[in-house]
Amino acid sequence: MLRSCVILVEPKYSGNVGSVARCMKNFGVSELYLVNPCKLDDPAYVMAMHAKDILDRAKIFQSFDEALESVDLAVATTSVIEEHRKACLRKAYTLKEFVEEMKDFNGKVGLFFGREDYGLYNEEIKKCDILVNIPTSKEYPSLNLSHAVGIVLYELFSYRFDRRVKDRNVGVTEKKKMVEFFNQVLDLINYPTHKREKAEITFRRALGRAKLTELEYHTMMGIMSEIIEKLRSR
Amino acid sequence: MLRSCVILVEPKYSGNVGSVARCMKNFGVSELYLVNPCKLDDPAYVMAMHAKDILDRAKIFQSFDEALESVDLAVATTSVIEEHRKACLRKAYTLKEFVEEMKDFNGKVGLFFGREDYGLYNEEIKKCDILVNIPTSKEYPSLNLSHAVGIVLYELFSYRFDRRVKDRNVGVTEKKKMVEFFNQVLDLINYPTHKREKAEITFRRALGRAKLTELEYHTMMGIMSEIIEKLRSR
Repeated sequence: MLRSCVILVEPKYSGNVGSVARCMKNFGVSELYLVNPCKLDDPAYVMAMHAKDILDRAKIFQSFDEALESVDLAVATTSVIEEHRKACLRKAYTLKEFVEEMKDFNGKVGLFFGREDYGLYNEEIKKCDILVNIPTSKEYPSLNLSHAVGIVLYELFSYRFDRRVKDRNVGVTEKKKMVEFFNQVLDLINYPTHKREKAEITFRRALGRAKLTELEYHTMMGIMSEIIEKLRSR
Repeated sequence: MLRSCVILVEPKYSGNVGSVARCMKNFGVSELYLVNPCKLDDPAYVMAMHAKDILDRAKIFQSFDEALESVDLAVATTSVIEEHRKACLRKAYTLKEFVEEMKDFNGKVGLFFGREDYGLYNEEIKKCDILVNIPTSKEYPSLNLSHAVGIVLYELFSYRFDRRVKDRNVGVTEKKKMVEFFNQVLDLINYPTHKREKAEITFRRALGRAKLTELEYHTMMGIMSEIIEKLRSR
């Protein structure tokens, strides 16, 4: 089981810390660690909205190394990466690659986010186990701190969420039945024989792409039955 | 080719509009449409940072319907969904499902985001083609407006980004060579025969999980050669 905590290193604006707390609550993460933070004054509490409890319980560390020792896996985040083959320190996983890697990790993951203006220092990145980058436009790669946190937590949350059970889509039998109904409609409106094949293929293809759920299927079949009945009774 | 624009419906806080502009530039989206917005005063420009040009070029609409007519596909976003089988209006795609669906869409996609306090009205959602939800914690599902925009744009951006060419990972031949080197090291340190099999399996498994790139492979092999040479020359 992966447990994550958010670690902000020397955040300068308390409003950002508050926004981070809100994102954390949105994605069910509760442990906030702060290394040498600014004072958590009003803007922090205003931006935190319903996540004030996360601010109140935030753990304060005096140094990066202290925070580092409190986690099992240290993940540095950065907007500055090197993509060439020979890169080392700033060669990063994309966020999606990272989340994929984490799927069988068991322990406490510390997600380190650096200063608003400078990010994490090289000496800090060097001490982390993994470097992660959120792919962005080359024109303006630097995300706001709380938006970077929000996106990372979203991706970790979604990974678990997406494995829930989905509504079943209708299968071959249901689609065949629907095409039969469609052909009955064509009969009833005396649709020209030479255009029938194309019409049926078009309908079948649209149906294939629509990936109806069972409920949607029953709604549509109900409507088609009504149409057929009305056409017959004319 | 999918082209997207962000449409904020009656945003109340100009700082939020500025944060949205920044996110847009971070993910390479430039068209911002505003329906009945608040005044774009100082906080908007402070939060926009290097995306002030997006605010300056924002298109203002007087009504939701006007904005609707300017796009090919209208996508409503919501934090309020219904998950039961019989749901209709507020039955939503998850963000990931939506992005997957969009992969072969050709045209202009309008991403509609509602008011900070109320989101989109039911009558507005009804007029859209698709409803999308960002999965969040049930305890506090409501994301800050600009964070919701940031996450949606991140996901659309990543989808294109993740299809770039990756560094090749080393294959069977390289890994076999590395295991050979490892065994040479074991020979040279007179590692007990009865423990050899376990050691080799452990090494091979770790190697499998490490998914080395070619560059990392050469670095590691260089080191192992040095070790072997040093052990031999003792």
